[in-house]
Amino acid sequence: MLVVMRHDATPEEIQAVVDRIHELGYEATPMPGKQRTAVGLVGNDGKVNADRIESLAGVLEIIHVSQPYKQVSREWKEESTVVELANGTRIGGTEVVVMAGPCSVEGESQIIGVAHQLRAAGATILRGGAFKPRTSPYSFQGMAEDGLKLLAKARDETGMAIVTEAIDSESLDLVVKYADIVQIGARNMQNFSLLRHAGRAGKPVLLKRGMAATVKDLLLSAEYLLAEGNGQVILCERGVRGFDTHTRNLLDLTAIPVVHSLSHLPIIADPSHGTGLRAKVIPMARAAVAAGADGLMIEVHPDPERAMSDGAQSLYPAQFEELMQQVETIAAAIGREMAPSLASV
Amino acid sequence: MLVVMRHDATPEEIQAVVDRIHELGYEATPMPGKQRTAVGLVGNDGKVNADRIESLAGVLEIIHVSQPYKQVSREWKEESTVVELANGTRIGGTEVVVMAGPCSVEGESQIIGVAHQLRAAGATILRGGAFKPRTSPYSFQGMAEDGLKLLAKARDETGMAIVTEAIDSESLDLVVKYADIVQIGARNMQNFSLLRHAGRAGKPVLLKRGMAATVKDLLLSAEYLLAEGNGQVILCERGVRGFDTHTRNLLDLTAIPVVHSLSHLPIIADPSHGTGLRAKVIPMARAAVAAGADGLMIEVHPDPERAMSDGAQSLYPAQFEELMQQVETIAAAIGREMAPSLASV
Amino acid sequence: MLVVMRHDATPEEIQAVVDRIHELGYEATPMPGKQRTAVGLVGNDGKVNADRIESLAGVLEIIHVSQPYKQVSREWKEESTVVELANGTRIGGTEVVVMAGPCSVEGESQIIGVAHQLRAAGATILRGGAFKPRTSPYSFQGMAEDGLKLLAKARDETGMAIVTEAIDSESLDLVVKYADIVQIGARNMQNFSLLRHAGRAGKPVLLKRGMAATVKDLLLSAEYLLAEGNGQVILCERGVRGFDTHTRNLLDLTAIPVVHSLSHLPIIADPSHGTGLRAKVIPMARAAVAAGADGLMIEVHPDPERAMSDGAQSLYPAQFEELMQQVETIAAAIGREMAPSLASV
Amino acid sequence: MLVVMRHDATPEEIQAVVDRIHELGYEATPMPGKQRTAVGLVGNDGKVNADRIESLAGVLEIIHVSQPYKQVSREWKEESTVVELANGTRIGGTEVVVMAGPCSVEGESQIIGVAHQLRAAGATILRGGAFKPRTSPYSFQGMAEDGLKLLAKARDETGMAIVTEAIDSESLDLVVKYADIVQIGARNMQNFSLLRHAGRAGKPVLLKRGMAATVKDLLLSAEYLLAEGNGQVILCERGVRGFDTHTRNLLDLTAIPVVHSLSHLPIIADPSHGTGLRAKVIPMARAAVAAGADGLMIEVHPDPERAMSDGAQSLYPAQFEELMQQVETIAAAIGREMAPSLASV
Repeated sequence: MLVVMRHDATPEEIQAVVDRIHELGYEATPMPGKQRTAVGLVGNDGKVNADRIESLAGVLEIIHVSQPYKQVSREWKEESTVVELANGTRIGGTEVVVMAGPCSVEGESQIIGVAHQLRAAGATILRGGAFKPRTSPYSFQGMAEDGLKLLAKARDETGMAIVTEAIDSESLDLVVKYADIVQIGARNMQNFSLLRHAGRAGKPVLLKRGMAATVKDLLLSAEYLLAEGNGQVILCERGVRGFDTHTRNLLDLTAIPVVHSLSHLPIIADPSHGTGLRAKVIPMARAAVAAGADGLMIEVHPDPERAMSDGAQSLYPAQFEELMQQVETIAAAIGREMAPSLASV
Repeated sequence: MLVVMRHDATPEEIQAVVDRIHELGYEATPMPGKQRTAVGLVGNDGKVNADRIESLAGVLEIIHVSQPYKQVSREWKEESTVVELANGTRIGGTEVVVMAGPCSVEGESQIIGVAHQLRAAGATILRGGAFKPRTSPYSFQGMAEDGLKLLAKARDETGMAIVTEAIDSESLDLVVKYADIVQIGARNMQNFSLLRHAGRAGKPVLLKRGMAATVKDLLLSAEYLLAEGNGQVILCERGVRGFDTHTRNLLDLTAIPVVHSLSHLPIIADPSHGTGLRAKVIPMARAAVAAGADGLMIEVHPDPERAMSDGAQSLYPAQFEELMQQVETIAAAIGREMAPSLASV
Repeated sequence: MLVVMRHDATPEEIQAVVDRIHELGYEATPMPGKQRTAVGLVGNDGKVNADRIESLAGVLEIIHVSQPYKQVSREWKEESTVVELANGTRIGGTEVVVMAGPCSVEGESQIIGVAHQLRAAGATILRGGAFKPRTSPYSFQGMAEDGLKLLAKARDETGMAIVTEAIDSESLDLVVKYADIVQIGARNMQNFSLLRHAGRAGKPVLLKRGMAATVKDLLLSAEYLLAEGNGQVILCERGVRGFDTHTRNLLDLTAIPVVHSLSHLPIIADPSHGTGLRAKVIPMARAAVAAGADGLMIEVHPDPERAMSDGAQSLYPAQFEELMQQVETIAAAIGREMAPSLASV
Repeated sequence: MLVVMRHDATPEEIQAVVDRIHELGYEATPMPGKQRTAVGLVGNDGKVNADRIESLAGVLEIIHVSQPYKQVSREWKEESTVVELANGTRIGGTEVVVMAGPCSVEGESQIIGVAHQLRAAGATILRGGAFKPRTSPYSFQGMAEDGLKLLAKARDETGMAIVTEAIDSESLDLVVKYADIVQIGARNMQNFSLLRHAGRAGKPVLLKRGMAATVKDLLLSAEYLLAEGNGQVILCERGVRGFDTHTRNLLDLTAIPVVHSLSHLPIIADPSHGTGLRAKVIPMARAAVAAGADGLMIEVHPDPERAMSDGAQSLYPAQFEELMQQVETIAAAIGREMAPSLASV
C-alpha cells in the first residue's frame, strides 16, 4: 500500500502517517520524490484499514498495490480450479462446458422435453429457474419447490446435472437439496449474507457478476465463498450496465481473460442475459468461447413465443444445435474440446 | 405499449401480432406508417408479458408507453407521501430532514456522544450501522444486536429517531425491533426477498438506489414494498457507478427532481457515500438540498481518523454544524425549512 | 414518431399536438388508451424537429419509432457494402481482413521491417500513425508527412494497402494524398466538420466508434460521410468507456452483430485499443472474428518495449503470426475465410 | 511513478526495470514488500513514457503518483484564475456569473429581444450558437457568420459579453473576430488540433467536458490551451454519458469541487445540456451554485416551442427570472454574490 502525500504536506504530517502505520502493526518506508513524498506500507496482509490512514492530514490518496482478495487469487493458488460434478462434467479444465435450458421451469413436459433435446445436442448441464428475481413484483416469480422437483426428474431421465438459482436463505436450502450447482444471480452478487450461507452449503456455486461490479468486486464476492471453505466456485460474465440501449446489457468478454490471469477459478459466459436478444446470442456465444470461456450458459426454450419469461432471448432448439456445432470448431481452434456429451457416455 | 414491426414485415406477421394481443386479452390498433407499421396495445394494465409478443416474427421492438410501476407513481396518488416518525419528524413535506451519525456503531461512548452533538446541531434522526455489508469478507462487519441496543439507548437519551440497515431476514427482524426506520442498502436494492420481508415489517423503510439502478428500477423495487402494503417508503440517492475514479460513486442529483415528478414518495440524498470524500460531502449536501431533496443522510464521526469504517468520508462534528447552517439558508431560498430541531421541542 | 401525452393532458392540449404536427406537414393519429393518449406522427421522413412538439404543454415524451439515420441503414440498402482497395483486398464480403502495424510510424527500418513481417503472416493492410491525437500535449505527436512518406514506401515495397489517421483538415488532405484508407479516430467521431471533409475526399474512410457513442451515434456519424457522397465507409468497434479500470476500454463486441443487423456497412474490431493490454489482445481478436467482425485492426511493433506510444498493447511479431493461425480456423468455423495473403498473389 | 512487479518477478526482471528507469534519465528505488517488489521512479517530470517500462517482463502494473497535467494544476499555481471580460464580468472570483441565451441564433428579433430580457434579469453574458455540431447531418446547422454578426449587434445594444461555439479552424477564426469567449463543445474536447488553435487565439476559452471524459481528461485538454500560452480558460461541466435514459446526460456536479481542489481554473455548469429537460434545469442550476460553481450557462428562448434546436430544454424568460432570484439567495448562503448586473452599471 502506498500513501501519497500532498505536495505541501509538512514533515509532521508525514511523520504522523509513519506513526499510524506503526501503530497498525506494519512497517513504513517514506519515499521522498521531486514533487511529493509517498509512504510505503510494507507487510500488508490484506487487513489494513485504509480509512485509518486516509483520514490523516496531508494525505492525498491511498494506492492499493496488493489486491484485497486472497484465496481466489492465482498468486495464492497457481493451478486452475476444476469443479467436478457427479455426472462427470468438469468445469475449468481444457473442456468447454455448456449449461442450457429455459429461463423458468414452467411444467413437466416443457422441462423434460427440452432436456432431452439439449442433451442430444451436447449440453451436459440443465438450467431452469424455480425462484425468479423479477424487477417487477407483478411478474411471474417461478414455480418454487415444484420447479426444483421437475428439474430433479429431468436429471433422473437424462443424466444432466442441474444448475438453478437461490435468492434467499430459504430457497438456498431447497436448491442445495435438489441441484448440483447453486446459482447466485447478478442482483445478489453482493448479498453477503446469502454468499456466506452458500459458502457453507457444500455444493458448487455459480456466481454471476453484478451489473455494476468490477472484476475486483466479483472476486471479492467469490472470496466470501472461499472464506467459508467452499472452493467449488464458477464465475459467470453476464453483461454489465452500459449506456447503449441497443442491447439489454453490455457483455464484457474481456473479463474472461482478465479473470483467468488474476484467479484460478473457472469463468463461463451467459450471452443470453448478456445481450437479451436471440439473434445476438449465437455470435456472442461463439465469441465467448473464442475469448477463452470455460463454458456457456444459454437460454433455450421449446417454444420461446410462449415462454413465461425471457422469451425474446431464448433460442429455439434447432438454433442451439447449430450453435453447438460452431462452438465445437472454435474450441478446437484454440486447443480445447467440448465436454464429452452424455449421449456418448 | 407499441409493437414496432420491421419495415419488411408481412401482413401475416402483423396479423399474428394482432392475434396474440387479442389472445392476451387486450385491444390492438395497427398504425400503418410511411416506413413501417406499428401496432398499439390498448388497455395495458401493467401486466402484459411483452416477451410473448417480442418473440413473434417481424417484430422489431416493443416500446413501453406506460411505466411498469403503479402504486409508487404520482399518476396513482397525486399528493406527496409524508412519513411521520414517533419523535415528530416528518419526511416528505416542506421540511428538510437530516439523518446523521457514524458509518458503524462502535461503542457506547462513541454513539451516544455523537448523538448529543448531532441533536444540538439540528439533526433529528440518528444513523449508525450495526450490520455492515462489506465488499471484503475480512473487513469489520458490525456489532450486530449489541449495536442496535446502543442505538436504542442513544434514542432514549436524545429523542432522536433511529435509522439502521438490515441485510437479511434475521437482521431485519432485529432492526424492526429496535429502529424507527429500516434501511435497505444499495447492494440489496434488488434483493426482492428482503424487500417483501421489509414490506410486511410495519416500519418505515429507507430504500437506497443501487449502483447500476435506473430511476425506474428504484421505483420498481419500492413497488415491492408498497405491494406488500407498506406505503411508508423513503427513497435515497447515494451515487451510481461512474467511469471516473476521482470520486467513489457518481452522485446523480438530477434523480431527485426526476423522482419527484414520477412518484409521490420522498427522496433524500446521501452525499457521504455519493462522493466518498469528506471535502466533497459539504458542497454536495448543499447541492442536494438546492435540487429539492427532502432530506440528507450524512456520516459524522467524533474521531474520523479512528473510525472502523468510512473514516475518509465522515465529517468532523464541527464541520457538520457549519453545514447545517448553510443548508438552512438554502432551504429557505427555495421555500422550505429545516425540520424543527429536537432541542427546541 | 409517437407523442405520449401525460395522463392528465386536456383535450385542448392533445389537439394542440395534432395541430402542430399538421403545421409541420405530417399526419397525426391520436390513440386514446386506458391510462393516457398517444399521438402518432405518420409520414416521418427523418427531418421532423421533435423539439417543436416536445415543448408543448401536456406532452410526456416523444418516442422515435424510425431511426434518424437513413443512407447507412439496411432498410435503405439491403446488400452489404464491400469496400475494395487497389491491392485487391475487399472489406465487407465473406473475407476477414487484417490491418496491422505499429501505433506510430517511428522510422524507416521500423515500419518497413514490420510491414514485411506482417505481410508474411497474412495481413494485407498496414496501419501506422503519422498524426497522433494524444491526451497529453507533452506526448509524442507523430512524424506527420514524413511518416506518411514512409508508409507509402512500405506500400511500394510490400504491396500492402495503407490506413492512417487524419486529425484535422490539414492532415486529412495529406493523408488522402498518401493512404488507401483515411482513419477518423474515436475522439473525432463527432468532429462533424472533419467528417464532411472526409466525405468529400474520395477515399474509403475507417470510422472508429467514440468512447461514449451509442451504435446509433456511430451510424449517424457515418451518415455524415454518406450524405457527402462517400459510401466507402468501414466502421470500427474499439471499446467504449466503462467503469472497470482493469482494461483501458470496454470492448463491446455485441456492437458487431448489432451493426450488421442495422446497417449494410462493414465493421471491424480493434482489440488493441479495446483492451490496452497485450495479453488480452489475442483472445479478444479471436472473439471479434467469432462474433462476425469483417476484419481486425491490430497493433504490432517489432520491439514493443521501445515503442514511442502504446507499447504495452502492441503484439510481438511472433505473437501476431500465431494469432493469424487461430483466427483462420475460427473464420472457417463460421463459414468465412481470411482475405488472401499478398504473399500468395 | 511506481512500477509494481509480479509476485514471481525474478531479480533479473527487477534489475531490468531499474536499468530502464536509469536509461530514461530518472532515479529508481526498489521497495521489496511481503508479497511483491515495487520500484519507485523518482524525479518524474511528467514526461516519462510509461509504455517503455510497462512492456518489460515481470511488470504487473504502473501506478502514476503524479498527475500528467501541470500548468492547470493548483500545485503549479495556487491562486484561482479569474477571467476578466471587457464588460467587467469576472469569472472565477467570488462572483457567480450567468451566461444565458438560446441554443441557436435564429434571427435578429429573436436574439436581440431575448438579450434585453436576460440582461434585465441579471445575466451578463449572452450565449447563442452560430455553428452547431449536430448529431444528424440533416438537422439545422446554424446561421454561421450571419449569426455571429447578430450576436455582436446584441452586444452593442445591451453591453452583454458574447460566448459562442467554434467547431473547426475556419469557424474559430470567425468566432475569435466577433465573440468575447470562444466555446469548445463537448464533442470537440479532445479535438487537439482545434485546442491548439484556440490556445493561440488570444481570447478566453470555455471548454466543455466531453461525455466520456474524466476530470483528468478535461484538465489535460485544458493543458493544451495553457501549453499554447492561453491561461484564460473556463471549464464547464455539462453532463456525462450515463446508463439511465430519464435524462439526456448525467450532470456530475461533484466534478465542481473536484476541479476546484485540483486546478486553479474556474468551472461553471450547464444544466440545460446536463439534463435536457426544462423542468430539471431550474433545480439543477440551483444545485450547481450550491456545489460551488463559478457560473451557469442556461438556455433561454423567447418561444421555446418554436426553437430550431433544443426547445425542450430551454427556459421561458419568466422562468429564468425566477431562477435568478433563487440563485442569488443560494450564492449568499455560501458567501458568494451574483456578478453585478449590467443594468445597474
